[in-house]
Amino acid sequence: MTPRRRSFYGWGYEDDAASAQEIKSSERGWADLFGVEDFTPVPMPTPEEIDLRASRVKIPVALRACCTDAKYQRLLHSYGRSVHDLARMIHRRDFTNPPDVVAYPRSEEDILAVLDWCGDEGLAAIPYGGGSSVVGGVNPPRDGHRPGNVTLDLKHLNRVLEVDPLSQAARIQAGTLGPDLENQLRPTGLTMRFFLQAWEFSSLGGWIATRAAGHYATAYTQIDDYVQSLRVVTPAGVLASGRVPTSGAGPNSDRLFLGSEGALGVVTEAWVRLHRRPTERVATTVRFRDYGKAVNAVRVISQSGLFPANVRLIEREEVKFTEAGDGAHDLLVLSFESADHPLGPWMERALEICRDDGGEWDEETLAQSESHRSGAAGRWREKFLRGPYLREHAIARGVMRDTVESCVTWDRYMELRARVKEATLAAIREVTGREGLVTVRFTHVYPDGPAPYFTWHALGDKAKLIEQFWLIKAAASDAMTAAGGTITHHHALGRDHRRWYDQERPELFATVLRAAKRELDPRAVLNPGVLVDP
Amino acid sequence: MTPRRRSFYGWGYEDDAASAQEIKSSERGWADLFGVEDFTPVPMPTPEEIDLRASRVKIPVALRACCTDAKYQRLLHSYGRSVHDLARMIHRRDFTNPPDVVAYPRSEEDILAVLDWCGDEGLAAIPYGGGSSVVGGVNPPRDGHRPGNVTLDLKHLNRVLEVDPLSQAARIQAGTLGPDLENQLRPTGLTMRFFLQAWEFSSLGGWIATRAAGHYATAYTQIDDYVQSLRVVTPAGVLASGRVPTSGAGPNSDRLFLGSEGALGVVTEAWVRLHRRPTERVATTVRFRDYGKAVNAVRVISQSGLFPANVRLIEREEVKFTEAGDGAHDLLVLSFESADHPLGPWMERALEICRDDGGEWDEETLAQSESHRSGAAGRWREKFLRGPYLREHAIARGVMRDTVESCVTWDRYMELRARVKEATLAAIREVTGREGLVTVRFTHVYPDGPAPYFTWHALGDKAKLIEQFWLIKAAASDAMTAAGGTITHHHALGRDHRRWYDQERPELFATVLRAAKRELDPRAVLNPGVLVDP
Repeated sequence: MTPRRRSFYGWGYEDDAASAQEIKSSERGWADLFGVEDFTPVPMPTPEEIDLRASRVKIPVALRACCTDAKYQRLLHSYGRSVHDLARMIHRRDFTNPPDVVAYPRSEEDILAVLDWCGDEGLAAIPYGGGSSVVGGVNPPRDGHRPGNVTLDLKHLNRVLEVDPLSQAARIQAGTLGPDLENQLRPTGLTMRFFLQAWEFSSLGGWIATRAAGHYATAYTQIDDYVQSLRVVTPAGVLASGRVPTSGAGPNSDRLFLGSEGALGVVTEAWVRLHRRPTERVATTVRFRDYGKAVNAVRVISQSGLFPANVRLIEREEVKFTEAGDGAHDLLVLSFESADHPLGPWMERALEICRDDGGEWDEETLAQSESHRSGAAGRWREKFLRGPYLREHAIARGVMRDTVESCVTWDRYMELRARVKEATLAAIREVTGREGLVTVRFTHVYPDGPAPYFTWHALGDKAKLIEQFWLIKAAASDAMTAAGGTITHHHALGRDHRRWYDQERPELFATVLRAAKRELDPRAVLNPGVLVDP
Repeated sequence: MTPRRRSFYGWGYEDDAASAQEIKSSERGWADLFGVEDFTPVPMPTPEEIDLRASRVKIPVALRACCTDAKYQRLLHSYGRSVHDLARMIHRRDFTNPPDVVAYPRSEEDILAVLDWCGDEGLAAIPYGGGSSVVGGVNPPRDGHRPGNVTLDLKHLNRVLEVDPLSQAARIQAGTLGPDLENQLRPTGLTMRFFLQAWEFSSLGGWIATRAAGHYATAYTQIDDYVQSLRVVTPAGVLASGRVPTSGAGPNSDRLFLGSEGALGVVTEAWVRLHRRPTERVATTVRFRDYGKAVNAVRVISQSGLFPANVRLIEREEVKFTEAGDGAHDLLVLSFESADHPLGPWMERALEICRDDGGEWDEETLAQSESHRSGAAGRWREKFLRGPYLREHAIARGVMRDTVESCVTWDRYMELRARVKEATLAAIREVTGREGLVTVRFTHVYPDGPAPYFTWHALGDKAKLIEQFWLIKAAASDAMTAAGGTITHHHALGRDHRRWYDQERPELFATVLRAAKRELDPRAVLNPGVLVDP
């Protein structure tokens, strides 16, 4: 049996692409949206047709066991999974900058050896988990003065090393992808339940380096809340923090690496907090006629101390486009989960809050423990999980579907939403000459504000897709940050968000990060162009 | 009317000392504990009797409006409030190192001017909030090579500047003490509810710099959970983070200053999260016959998702000594609070968990909304609040009563408790020639472990109290950290915990902190001896 191979240009495994029916259904949506009938796709690229630059560096004998310069591996590690990454590949725009070598370390010693080699030769080292970055976090840098780039793929560091059932925590290697992590935990009855959209193709180390956010909409949102301690390999040596629930002893060292995006070190393992597998679940979908009131209900719930697992408010335009409903209402997907107690009183109170703001729901859904997998919520969920598989087909047809997401205080949210929608729609119109669509949902909510997630759709010109994408993305991001939102709640920075991050981050903190990088990575080997410049 | 003056050697205001009756009652407890009848106290010191070294520095004309070298002010800022600080003052052991100048800045410009002056003259600047440090965090450094020390008391930065009722947050100046902060918030219906034992005499900036922990035993424990954004004045300039609920954009800059103990900058203001004033409250005290089972019940509660406001497990020895009960049971003070909903189902489930581990309680207390202020819990609470006022009287009698506190995962807790008690009792016996007492309670609990808080009592030799204290403190701290606990959950590091912190902190993180200090405080003005050495 041949091992399954990942698609080098799209999402997932080569043998698990979107079905013809799924593509057809998407095409119908785009046809309605853009008033266009014919979507002749460009054919998907094959490795054979691509004339890849030969590797510019020679792998030292001592590293041959863990390094390769094989074409497919270099191709696979050329890009992340942003719209413009996919457009570059699918529209054959640019295969000029693959990594020269892909390293597959099996130990921290391997990583240190690769980092040493890179330092000696002036090569860049790009840490790589699942490769799902949508912000240019794993793309080899394009600065001309380096003799070569090495991608450090942590896929072999994929084991759950230790479980502490009493404290509900596990020590897990950083290269472990979502499904593998859950499979190894299953016999213990514990789960991380960190179900982000890229779960199948993202790793624990990637979640940590990018401050990813997972399944829970409240209380345990970002990976920051899960990390008990870290091991990080840096060119200056290994840094390991002690395993305690929390401490008041000085600044938390783990927090320097949460969000460090591979620029300060390579996370190799972490103790993370787990949950018991939920045994109780109650879910429903609440309909609102007034979006402002729906937002208010969500705010009150977020400040209630009820801590729902899901409190995803989807505005009617998104409901309609995803066919989760007819678009007459904004929908709030509301659920509670517990491994400890029945959740009747929790849901009752949350629904009371919804009712105060005009929310309506079907009582019978409450009795169905699987109601999150059926009805409107179920239809929305299916679209969510299959979304990444369809993006490559959209791009092959000139359709851009991208997201910008943020976090903002409640007092600024309605204004931010209005400005992002207005600016993005205007940019789509100006850039593509056609109307587009911008919709928003909440992915996570905090007592002090929501994390709004905007999806925009535009039909571009296949020959100018990357340039068009950037004009629209920039307009959306400018509006979002000007309205007081952060440039990202959980998609991270990579290279794509640097210009907004550089404005958002206090300048003196950049000075501190540069100083930290000089200490930990004195030869500036790690992920150049990300986080901070030397 | 003369303004109230703080006691320079003890707790609180000069006119609010412990009453003769309170002292008598404490003496009875010590008499029982140590088998000693006569506790002749040394008389409390007066400013007049102390021959303070003259200030070694001349205040520049431009700073005279905000700086003083008056004797009482320098005396008041000579020490924090640790046992050995008090012993030094009350037993007239050491008044040799007062600050030379006390600055009372009224603006960030004043702070920058003082820091500039200190840099130019080679003086140390010691940020000072309420002065309640029990770890030597505000004591002027004793390194001989500096020409002088300036304490920077932020008491005039004491205003709530802005309130966002929708996001439930406020922008507050860092020098605001607990009661003043709550008084200013009261008209808004919002509260910070950050009720630590030193609440009356500690400031928001102090809480942030020391990672203090407050009222809530779960969910909102440390000040880290409250900070939305910070303003920090450093010798290199002002650093201000943006106000968002959270962000995924790079490492969180606020986390560098949470726990920075005045060594990296002076926090001047923060946006902090608030709660609505609770309208619902349910509380009771659960009795356990088996301490191991009580710990288990607390662990299950901490992992249940119920988020009690209080889950303070007090072992029977502490129950007995504080006269909260007869000592036949370990007591769990359990309460829930909400501004949103009645808490019956929450308390019911928590009590079910307690019952599974043999817990018993009086049903009638559940109906009393003020039951936390009455009965065993009420007696314990009264002792807690008055404790700091009695410490000076203990020390005047040669009685040491100190605490070491930690945080540790559940799998290590029982072992840590055994080792800390054994080592501390042995040290007390060896050092003082008498038996002492060591008791423990939980102040805060996390799903992955508790924050145990040990109190020890020993009757020492008035002439050797400081040396005896250090021998006992070191034995307790060594045992605690050897058993896998952090050196502090919320008392911070100051100068006293440096030796344990230096072992606990990853060495490469020390390198990063030194680099950060070089950037932010290049002339090493800020709080020398704290956090990290240049």
